[in-house]
Amino acid sequence: MRQAPRGNVAEAARTDAVSPTGADAAGVATLAVLGAGAWGTVLAHLLAQNGHLVRLWCRSTDVAAAIGRTHRNPAYLPDLDLAPSIAATADVAEAAHGVDAVIMAVPTRAMRETLGRLPPVPAVVSASKGFAGDALTRMTELAAAAQPWAVVAALSGPNLAGEIAEGLPAAATLACSDAPFARRARTWLTRPTFRVYVSSDVAGVEACGALKNVVALAAGMLDGLGLGENAHAALLTRGLTELVRVGRALGGEERTFYGLAGVGDLIATCASTRSRNHQAGVRIARGDSVGEVLASGVTAEGLATVVHVHAYAAATGLDLPISREVYRVVYEHKRPLKAIRDLMARPPREE
Amino acid sequence: MRQAPRGNVAEAARTDAVSPTGADAAGVATLAVLGAGAWGTVLAHLLAQNGHLVRLWCRSTDVAAAIGRTHRNPAYLPDLDLAPSIAATADVAEAAHGVDAVIMAVPTRAMRETLGRLPPVPAVVSASKGFAGDALTRMTELAAAAQPWAVVAALSGPNLAGEIAEGLPAAATLACSDAPFARRARTWLTRPTFRVYVSSDVAGVEACGALKNVVALAAGMLDGLGLGENAHAALLTRGLTELVRVGRALGGEERTFYGLAGVGDLIATCASTRSRNHQAGVRIARGDSVGEVLASGVTAEGLATVVHVHAYAAATGLDLPISREVYRVVYEHKRPLKAIRDLMARPPREE
Repeated sequence: MRQAPRGNVAEAARTDAVSPTGADAAGVATLAVLGAGAWGTVLAHLLAQNGHLVRLWCRSTDVAAAIGRTHRNPAYLPDLDLAPSIAATADVAEAAHGVDAVIMAVPTRAMRETLGRLPPVPAVVSASKGFAGDALTRMTELAAAAQPWAVVAALSGPNLAGEIAEGLPAAATLACSDAPFARRARTWLTRPTFRVYVSSDVAGVEACGALKNVVALAAGMLDGLGLGENAHAALLTRGLTELVRVGRALGGEERTFYGLAGVGDLIATCASTRSRNHQAGVRIARGDSVGEVLASGVTAEGLATVVHVHAYAAATGLDLPISREVYRVVYEHKRPLKAIRDLMARPPREE
Repeated sequence: MRQAPRGNVAEAARTDAVSPTGADAAGVATLAVLGAGAWGTVLAHLLAQNGHLVRLWCRSTDVAAAIGRTHRNPAYLPDLDLAPSIAATADVAEAAHGVDAVIMAVPTRAMRETLGRLPPVPAVVSASKGFAGDALTRMTELAAAAQPWAVVAALSGPNLAGEIAEGLPAAATLACSDAPFARRARTWLTRPTFRVYVSSDVAGVEACGALKNVVALAAGMLDGLGLGENAHAALLTRGLTELVRVGRALGGEERTFYGLAGVGDLIATCASTRSRNHQAGVRIARGDSVGEVLASGVTAEGLATVVHVHAYAAATGLDLPISREVYRVVYEHKRPLKAIRDLMARPPREE
């Protein structure tokens, strides 16, 4: 493991004791990014470029060792030259010891277990998009349960990791009910090409981030079938309605659905061949089974999210036609073309 | 000119006198589509496929003659085999005589003059997207001024004409304050692959249809510069805010902005290489002057719309940063990259 210089870590920890900002006089924070997938790797890189002391936790000791040795992540974005100050480790407790915040970038299915291995930390920022169960438990709710003393926040927005790694411009939303923490975390993350906006609507931001992956599966199927931009746009418009319904049910606010973390993330995720959920939809439309998609190692969060959303809709009576059709295709062998047709053929209504 | 069978026209006209639906017992309507660009041509084709008596007015006598002879439009979508019953003519008065409705698909700059040449008609449906002046006069307002006795309506939505010509599925919104007419016109247009929804918010639908072309110019510039999907999605999110601001100022309703005619049309127009406004933006980003774009015969409505919107913002104080930057690039020689950077660099705000 590459270690952050011990002296600096100690200094950051000491300053923490006297400064409520959790950073030393120069504004240097000590931060752990948990999860070295594409998004976690890029976030660690952004934070380190801003001069913060960054530990990157990798599930695999081999990946941690490779990052320490080569400053590249062999598993994700292997061409990205990582800031050499990033300290990679395969030890969660070591990564999170004495930090100002942990940024959670693990797959949502691993969220609860990873949170359970953390020492007490002052703040947890979730960068993972999905739900933890059929009651649509949000990632920050898991974080708050695991660390009741911590500030919790969610980071979301149209953030295809590969583009950010290439230095292309992007914007994100940091949602937190603690405004001073949100402003501080914004300074950690903001780069000339990465703008961070602050929101107080954690539930709305997380609901959108989870739901858009389900719509992206449907958009991938539609695009894989070659149905065109008009149909794609109509599907996204209906998808936005579904984000709004679930987001409202979870207590989110209207303006969130129509902002970066809502429609913005929806557009980027559904447009891009870089989105794993969209890719998974394309592959399913072309005849691959879900088993094959999963076996190829792709983490398409929408495949798990749709199970929870489908169960939630059944329990609450919420009308979520896209989620229903995606569920039927993915888990009940419905033909994608039939599912898309059934979506399009719903009775006309007043708009 | 190919004539619609005279007997049927007479029958339709006669039935009109006794039936408030404006169609004969079999539901056959007599309709004029004015403007034989891509959209007008496809609309005429859809209506004729539904068995209606369709006259298609072409500005050019040569195009009218060619359509009559070959059932193809040599100028737009030349591969589309048009329904042979379409009667093409270069005479506006002849096209509009005794019809149940005219569908206006002329460039917005030609709208006022074309409306001025119409005989009295019972209904005018605008399928053109733009404003008539710096007060943002809408196309249906021009129609109502020209034909005070007529029902007026607007057709909008994510409707790239080329895709509809290929039979790919699409959905549209027909906006009209006269609900019975809207339902009737919906039956004229609806096809198995073309779904029509009804709205009462004419102002909102028209505002969105006009504004999205300006955002598409900006999106084309951004895409022409290769700035990626994240930035594209962030731009569209801000563009939606601009649709909402202008739409509200013109009396439109919130739900319209987030429906097919709002965010739906915005996504399709901004995504597609088939959109002339997006194409124009790409060309401008790559160094073509506006003069060159216009000289190539491209009708990119956004190039005119942005002039009116810019003047309107100056007069009303409305904050429309995308429209302002597009105006500066197109008419004040600002560099596209500088304009996009200035847009991205606006101070962070609470989302």
